[in-house]
Amino acid sequence: MTEAAQPTESNVDVLIIGAGPAGLMAAAWMAHCGVKTRIVDKRNTKIFCGQADGLQCRSLEIFDSLGFADRVWKEANHMIEICMWNPGQDGVIRRSDRIPDTIVGLSRFQQIVLHQGRIERFFLDNIKKYSKDSIHVERGVLPESLEIDEANVDDEDAYPVTVKLRTLTDEEATPAQQVTGSKVSDGLFRSNLTMEDDEEELIQKSKARAGESEIVHAKYVIGCDGARSWTRRALGFELQGEATDFIWGVMDIIPITDFPDIRMRCAIHSADNGSLMVIPRENKMVRLYIQLKEVAPDASGRADRSKITPDLIFGAAQKILSPYKIDYEYCDWWTAYQIGQRVGTRFDAHNRVFLAGDAVHTHSPKAGQGMNVSMQDCYNLGWKIALVAKGICKRSILSSYQSERRQVAQDLIDFDHKFARLFSGRPAKDVMDAEGVSMEEFKDAFLKGNLFASGLIVDYGPSNIVVKPGNPAAEQSNGSEKSITEEEFADKQALASGLPVGMRFNSFKVLNQACARPWHFQERLKADGRFRVVLFAGDILNPSQKDRVDKFCSLLDSPTSFLRRATPKDKPIDSVIEVLTIHSSRRTETELLRDFPATLHPFDEHTGWDYNKVFVDDASYHEGYGDAHKNYGVDRERGCVVVVRPDQYVGWVGEIEDFEHLQGYFEGCMVLR
Amino acid sequence: MTEAAQPTESNVDVLIIGAGPAGLMAAAWMAHCGVKTRIVDKRNTKIFCGQADGLQCRSLEIFDSLGFADRVWKEANHMIEICMWNPGQDGVIRRSDRIPDTIVGLSRFQQIVLHQGRIERFFLDNIKKYSKDSIHVERGVLPESLEIDEANVDDEDAYPVTVKLRTLTDEEATPAQQVTGSKVSDGLFRSNLTMEDDEEELIQKSKARAGESEIVHAKYVIGCDGARSWTRRALGFELQGEATDFIWGVMDIIPITDFPDIRMRCAIHSADNGSLMVIPRENKMVRLYIQLKEVAPDASGRADRSKITPDLIFGAAQKILSPYKIDYEYCDWWTAYQIGQRVGTRFDAHNRVFLAGDAVHTHSPKAGQGMNVSMQDCYNLGWKIALVAKGICKRSILSSYQSERRQVAQDLIDFDHKFARLFSGRPAKDVMDAEGVSMEEFKDAFLKGNLFASGLIVDYGPSNIVVKPGNPAAEQSNGSEKSITEEEFADKQALASGLPVGMRFNSFKVLNQACARPWHFQERLKADGRFRVVLFAGDILNPSQKDRVDKFCSLLDSPTSFLRRATPKDKPIDSVIEVLTIHSSRRTETELLRDFPATLHPFDEHTGWDYNKVFVDDASYHEGYGDAHKNYGVDRERGCVVVVRPDQYVGWVGEIEDFEHLQGYFEGCMVLR
Repeated sequence: MTEAAQPTESNVDVLIIGAGPAGLMAAAWMAHCGVKTRIVDKRNTKIFCGQADGLQCRSLEIFDSLGFADRVWKEANHMIEICMWNPGQDGVIRRSDRIPDTIVGLSRFQQIVLHQGRIERFFLDNIKKYSKDSIHVERGVLPESLEIDEANVDDEDAYPVTVKLRTLTDEEATPAQQVTGSKVSDGLFRSNLTMEDDEEELIQKSKARAGESEIVHAKYVIGCDGARSWTRRALGFELQGEATDFIWGVMDIIPITDFPDIRMRCAIHSADNGSLMVIPRENKMVRLYIQLKEVAPDASGRADRSKITPDLIFGAAQKILSPYKIDYEYCDWWTAYQIGQRVGTRFDAHNRVFLAGDAVHTHSPKAGQGMNVSMQDCYNLGWKIALVAKGICKRSILSSYQSERRQVAQDLIDFDHKFARLFSGRPAKDVMDAEGVSMEEFKDAFLKGNLFASGLIVDYGPSNIVVKPGNPAAEQSNGSEKSITEEEFADKQALASGLPVGMRFNSFKVLNQACARPWHFQERLKADGRFRVVLFAGDILNPSQKDRVDKFCSLLDSPTSFLRRATPKDKPIDSVIEVLTIHSSRRTETELLRDFPATLHPFDEHTGWDYNKVFVDDASYHEGYGDAHKNYGVDRERGCVVVVRPDQYVGWVGEIEDFEHLQGYFEGCMVLR
Repeated sequence: MTEAAQPTESNVDVLIIGAGPAGLMAAAWMAHCGVKTRIVDKRNTKIFCGQADGLQCRSLEIFDSLGFADRVWKEANHMIEICMWNPGQDGVIRRSDRIPDTIVGLSRFQQIVLHQGRIERFFLDNIKKYSKDSIHVERGVLPESLEIDEANVDDEDAYPVTVKLRTLTDEEATPAQQVTGSKVSDGLFRSNLTMEDDEEELIQKSKARAGESEIVHAKYVIGCDGARSWTRRALGFELQGEATDFIWGVMDIIPITDFPDIRMRCAIHSADNGSLMVIPRENKMVRLYIQLKEVAPDASGRADRSKITPDLIFGAAQKILSPYKIDYEYCDWWTAYQIGQRVGTRFDAHNRVFLAGDAVHTHSPKAGQGMNVSMQDCYNLGWKIALVAKGICKRSILSSYQSERRQVAQDLIDFDHKFARLFSGRPAKDVMDAEGVSMEEFKDAFLKGNLFASGLIVDYGPSNIVVKPGNPAAEQSNGSEKSITEEEFADKQALASGLPVGMRFNSFKVLNQACARPWHFQERLKADGRFRVVLFAGDILNPSQKDRVDKFCSLLDSPTSFLRRATPKDKPIDSVIEVLTIHSSRRTETELLRDFPATLHPFDEHTGWDYNKVFVDDASYHEGYGDAHKNYGVDRERGCVVVVRPDQYVGWVGEIEDFEHLQGYFEGCMVLR
């Protein structure tokens, strides 16, 4: 018996377990914020065909904040319209409705489709660029144990989480895709129709062998390791919820068909053969979600996956689409799943280990929500961990992750539950057919679902980073933040009625004062970890308004201001909190250097004035007029002040004179020097 | 004495000499068209800071056709407004005018600024992608001799051009940038203030040494080797024109200044200290073009470059900008040049060796024209050589390169001559000051110049690929094309008054009939070497109009049609000529498969119907209404037919019934089987 070598030990600020879209989003934040990070994944391959592919408006806004929305937008298939197909009186399907796939005017982006492998590619490129190649995914690496030193979870200098990692052999780390002997790669190995035994098997294998192990001490661990999350199980947390009887197949094919709307997103209810959804994709491909009425769960509640083949799935699709013909030569990928909705009981342990994505919520894939909500979990979490790890923010902001995201997960589950029932149900024959699904109700649910699916109605509750009335979760209150009454809040919110506190900062076009270039304002809210104070300066050419702005700026400039105290001595004044200005005077009558206090366009002795901080709500030559004040609901004369979190959510709204409250906001969440 | 090894010999379809933007554009065509190509450059470095940087609307349209306009657009600085500064009665400069930098509505793009090194990077990536890594720039390779076998220039299978190439040592191939001992890299080594001796020296060096030599036999050679083109001199061709007395300096700096418009493009005439142009750039940099009144040419007509230093240039700038202050810590690059306008006598030899870019036109850089016109030379030339080399087009189309591009070069020279005089001249004190330049005249020239500078008013004359009245150059006529009278032409042009024959196909938004996605129509005119027949199908739901379209399609389908005869037997029907349709019926009342002949959306037995060829002029949900029929000046009921060349220029306009003339167009320029 040979003695195993002692495993190496090392410290890291953040350890991310799982390198799917959620884990990569977390890694992207760390790259953009410059936090020492490792990310591991037990699989040794990156690209899967198939899998998740729908991208919401909000996900695209987020990609833009990271810098790669343009790559996604260019490659993706753009879904423009949803066509509803229902049986007529004769039982034959016909088009009954058309609605826009994305509600008009919600966002500068619309929903699109691009397969997960490309999204992961763009994340990897982005992480490489921003981390200067210091963060890269370590594949074929499996966590074996996780311990939290509870005595030290509140020590800001501690590394209280200890994780043992083991490097797998190539053989161990490669999933067996071909479980059914089909020639086409399938996703059954990741489907919820399989048991969790492949995971267990991997772990057994890893225990049985002497692999390369190491000990990692981390300040923070993020588990993004999917529906069968090892991290969740290591913490002893549960997913709550249940599966339904509905079983669906999925195929990515190049269709040969006479069905007229094959390049539209279609929701098709046949009279008796079940339902089908068409999702047109890139490269001539189409994804079909196909209800499998002939496959039922057994006594244990699970379907027998050995019965599920591409021929069975496609046969069901042909019946639903009849009398239209459909065939294919090329199938890229296929899988099957049983609809279920489950949500995690807890999203974190001691604000040191966090769960995100499928690890804390699972549901049916048809609404194209899974990848989006998972990424958005980590878009919410990543900057909080990064800023706490860097000593910029207080640890108390970390509690807002669970309070903000668990509600979103619950809403998603509820939405999916209702939607799945309506979609899997048999269409009602007439108004007396109580067991059938009313197609009017279905359309109504689809329209509401469309708003939900945009990701843009997320509205975070009160906390020390979202100043609105209500009781923050107990652990959120640290005594330093100001509470606000319903009445006070209504007055303040009315100053910027188009920027609801708790929701994402909407985007309209404004012009750079110095060069007249139009920008979607959201383009100036990059994911660099900075909070932003947006000063709507009003009509700066009006002397009394100018006086208000001057006073605001002199308070900002004072040595005790949050802006000075949040900024390290050796760093530029905009490195932690950036002040951006939007004014309403005519651009051509205004001059940056003459009309605006220096605080709003700081001077650098090496590179001169900053020309990228002051914007004007005026018409552009080539790109129309954003009408920002009207759209943001801000008074053109008097303006107001808005705090934007690093993830683009509105945290606070107040008058230009409310400097003390503004100071209170940052005292509540930031470490001020 | 050792005997030198026999040089190796090889054949290549196309040899490109010089890998600046013009040479890379030619190589990009060859990559997109799949033509065996080599490209060599005598320098061993790619990136220069500084150099050309302005990009016209038309250049961006071209980049989009190649697939990388988005990368340029994202990185570039966008110039929005031009501010004119002139001396007032007191002699102090003040802003006298603002005009949009790009005329509103000309193009979907506007003028931007990005330095040449990045543009070259994007070209290299694009060439690598489309040639599947088979075309790459061979650097440090110098041509030593060029011979044309005149007996075989008309033989389509011959390789009548023989070029001897030699690989330089690293030392030979690295230009000495620091000619003045300044710490900042400068461009004097490429400036026209230097003699051509560095070139001669390189050649002397290469002759004196035994380097690696090889013999290349090429079907076609393109000389893109700059103002002192070796290829031009090897052919014995001349540049005609002359230099003026005006000498200008150029500096790329990060300015520290109180000048209000430093982020605008500015044209500044001082009362007595000369003129200055401000070009705001990416990364906080600004380019200054500075008139050097204190440096004059000597008796030989050339300035003494040893006197020109950054301090001298910047001192001149400070005087011109006074009373405003300007300073800098960081200078990226600087150079100086003497204004001169020269154009090549001949652009080709035997339609086998071609010259493009600075090799056939030189002028002042201030209007940001040089790189654009050079790239556009090769955008005109590349596809012609590619299609002839591939046996798709007749050799006679090659003559149109000189007839089309020499006129553009001449127009550029004339524009630059006038503009340079107005810009370098002293501003007139009043209307009686006949020697001074009237600022009204200057502004007027600037406005006209802006239109010219967009690159969008280029209008090619008659030839066998541009059917309009007039006498094509003698060598253009091959007897097979139809001539057209002024009257006939006026009738046909009136069918599409917004698509002038000889000009580029303008772009408006239309929707894909099958999926409702909006496209700028130009996005469908990719640089893949295909001619396109654009069928404006009119109101397809009107039975008599449908009948016209059906007849047109059955003629297209007949075995003797140009479409069938141009397409190789084993290739898809859209591989040489693509038929695209725009119709005017309501999208939601029309169905692709039901309402349009199969010819317009060809069926493939492996992948089904083609859903990307039929478009509708209708409103989009999210991106407005392109109103294409109105903008193209095409009748919504009756439509028309338009031929678009592979470079997006309109070649022919006719009625849907003018099939015989359409057939004649392709018989005139294509090899039909």
